[in-house]
Amino acid sequence: MSGARTDIEAVEAANTALYEAVERGDMDALSQLWLEDGISVVHPGWPVLTGRGEVLRSYALIMANTDYIQFFLTDVEVSVVGDTALVSCTENILSGGPAEADGTAGPLVGGLVVATNVFRRTPDGEWRVWSHHGSPVLVENEDDEDGGSVDEGDVEL
Amino acid sequence: MSGARTDIEAVEAANTALYEAVERGDMDALSQLWLEDGISVVHPGWPVLTGRGEVLRSYALIMANTDYIQFFLTDVEVSVVGDTALVSCTENILSGGPAEADGTAGPLVGGLVVATNVFRRTPDGEWRVWSHHGSPVLVENEDDEDGGSVDEGDVEL
Repeated sequence: MSGARTDIEAVEAANTALYEAVERGDMDALSQLWLEDGISVVHPGWPVLTGRGEVLRSYALIMANTDYIQFFLTDVEVSVVGDTALVSCTENILSGGPAEADGTAGPLVGGLVVATNVFRRTPDGEWRVWSHHGSPVLVENEDDEDGGSVDEGDVEL
Repeated sequence: MSGARTDIEAVEAANTALYEAVERGDMDALSQLWLEDGISVVHPGWPVLTGRGEVLRSYALIMANTDYIQFFLTDVEVSVVGDTALVSCTENILSGGPAEADGTAGPLVGGLVVATNVFRRTPDGEWRVWSHHGSPVLVENEDDEDGGSVDEGDVEL
């Protein structure tokens, strides 16, 4: 970690690194980015997975079933207090299906996911992932006449 | 907060209080439970909402559209490091629709949501909510013959 960077820049870099590791399918890098203890992950539509074994296995499964994936992060908000950082962001995802029989690329699929990522700074100054929770955005009607940013008729808790 | 309680018990109590405030439709209690700054919330299927204004308004909307809601929390896992706590849990939700025209109770609906809740201990020793992220569980096939706890054919990031 460069000493010239602010905490927020360092957290943003750690957050970006998490997605880049998934894009590259780099399990070694991903493993390094997560804390050792007390971690949890929720992938969109999945139950909670806890502990390094379950967390890393879930990423291995996703990578094994993903031929191509790219994340365009927007709305990145970082809140740092002491050695903990909370990041919320929107993942604009472009992913590719399996290649066609003739060897050409498979169809591309877009997706919209929102994520809450929690990081902790380790004693050596590195920001590591404590928790990742991603969920599909199912309801978004910002153009509603009533001015609401969500569909009031379809709320769930 | 009783001095006799461990940190984990205190965090569990704060986590329970969050859901009880929603069950009672108690906006004052809910407002007290959240930190002042840097907060964010994701309700299932919703985009990220940040700041007290958006967060509290979202709960007001949910409460206004919910006649009855009860949370049965399971799989509660708490990880406390210093003044920050990470809670993951499953919300087994029983909610009721609007009352019938004859005044009898509306239909009850069940739902399964997983949540990641982050708390911070304030200088006065109270654990307050920093972030709540809830998402619907769409994929869960624990009885799969392949032994997987998730549906490998339907993974998303």
